[in-house]
Amino acid sequence: MITSSSNAKVKLVRRLQADRRFRSREQRFVVEGTRWLTELVKMKLPPELLFYTQRWLETAVHAQILQQLNSLGQSTPLLVSDDVMQAMSDTSTPPGILAVLPMQPPPLRPNPTLLLVLDAINTPGNLGTMLRTAGAAGVDGVLLAPDCVDLYNPKVVRGSMGSHLRLPVYSQTWDEIANTVQTMQVWLATIQAETAYTAVNWTQPSALIIGSEAAGASEAARKITHQHLTIPMHAATESLNAAVAAGVILFEAARQRRKSQ
Amino acid sequence: MITSSSNAKVKLVRRLQADRRFRSREQRFVVEGTRWLTELVKMKLPPELLFYTQRWLETAVHAQILQQLNSLGQSTPLLVSDDVMQAMSDTSTPPGILAVLPMQPPPLRPNPTLLLVLDAINTPGNLGTMLRTAGAAGVDGVLLAPDCVDLYNPKVVRGSMGSHLRLPVYSQTWDEIANTVQTMQVWLATIQAETAYTAVNWTQPSALIIGSEAAGASEAARKITHQHLTIPMHAATESLNAAVAAGVILFEAARQRRKSQ
Repeated sequence: MITSSSNAKVKLVRRLQADRRFRSREQRFVVEGTRWLTELVKMKLPPELLFYTQRWLETAVHAQILQQLNSLGQSTPLLVSDDVMQAMSDTSTPPGILAVLPMQPPPLRPNPTLLLVLDAINTPGNLGTMLRTAGAAGVDGVLLAPDCVDLYNPKVVRGSMGSHLRLPVYSQTWDEIANTVQTMQVWLATIQAETAYTAVNWTQPSALIIGSEAAGASEAARKITHQHLTIPMHAATESLNAAVAAGVILFEAARQRRKSQ
Repeated sequence: MITSSSNAKVKLVRRLQADRRFRSREQRFVVEGTRWLTELVKMKLPPELLFYTQRWLETAVHAQILQQLNSLGQSTPLLVSDDVMQAMSDTSTPPGILAVLPMQPPPLRPNPTLLLVLDAINTPGNLGTMLRTAGAAGVDGVLLAPDCVDLYNPKVVRGSMGSHLRLPVYSQTWDEIANTVQTMQVWLATIQAETAYTAVNWTQPSALIIGSEAAGASEAARKITHQHLTIPMHAATESLNAAVAAGVILFEAARQRRKSQ
């Protein structure tokens, strides 16, 4: 059992959790919790490093998950003390299971038909929820513009519920984004616009840009936008959380695309 | 200027922030931040108590808001030190403006046509976001079943962005809820069901029950449910945050209701 926080592997995890540049250089990130680890089993993705506590293992279903993870090969699961897990964890009450994974989003398919472009989303929990929502709605991919919070920030990873593995998500410059969406209709969601999101034909190849609630859309986002859309609300005083707005629009797109099949 | 945290009014605020039962007995709650206070001005609702810091006042637009709040009458704005504001605030970086309000949700209209019923929603941020979403979608009211987090929990209040003032929201027992929804079709959102939320006729008087992600629906919720609905997702592994799910369904209802007008 590892009982010291100065163990080299433990130190690696702590640095991956805390340091964005280090994560980017290493091309590795940290996931925590039974739900995330169950995703790895489902996708047959062996973690590079795997840590667990005795307390976590005591639940019968957890022992089975550990066995399945172990049979994926690559790394031997490492038992750590509660204190060491606490030192590695990004949460105040660690779930007790933690893994290091390579940054390997699935590739973006050629000629995508629905993309989500995120502009200056800087709340980690919101970004995690948006990735989860985008995956559930069936987008082909998510593009993160330069001013977004880091895709591999521990809180983004926690909120995404495994979307990092299933969804093509790429951080791109605005030039790269312009290039990726060049054959699509590009919509920018705003507070006020003439076109309701329900009046858009989402069966056409479409990119949806969502900006932060606080700052609105950036100049760069406006530059690649073809048209603005809005979500009609009950009264002018109302507004929506950015992740909820993304969900409302993307599931309208999914509805139209299901209907047209 | 109030500089002592043992000032009687400061102590009242701290207890209102921390103690659910005390809030309920006093029938008062605390709001923080410029956005919430702007809502009070818009709705001409004078706060019972109002506290601000010098630092907050230094922004020109804030001075104007304070003047408008003052002209609503009732309470004299109280200048407090940064330390006292920190002691009263629920956040680690207090916005610098804080008010005490009476619990006075608008009344539920007779014969409501769209209600949201929340079952065991115990994440305060999620409940706040749901209230905001429900208000924007134009529901007639929100009913909170007994196992939900307190409606006036500081984190719920922060996430609701003023919905507490504009939206009829009531904590009810399941018997009261059954009574309120008795002439409506009652839908329960679940992970799997035959009926897609888009196949429901939302122009009929409808109540939508949303449960917690973790626990699913309670027995009591199932008892008053007429039919189950689901949000079709891209793949079986996907899932949605409960607040996003509520947004997706309620805005489909809003879309149908707009169309039928």
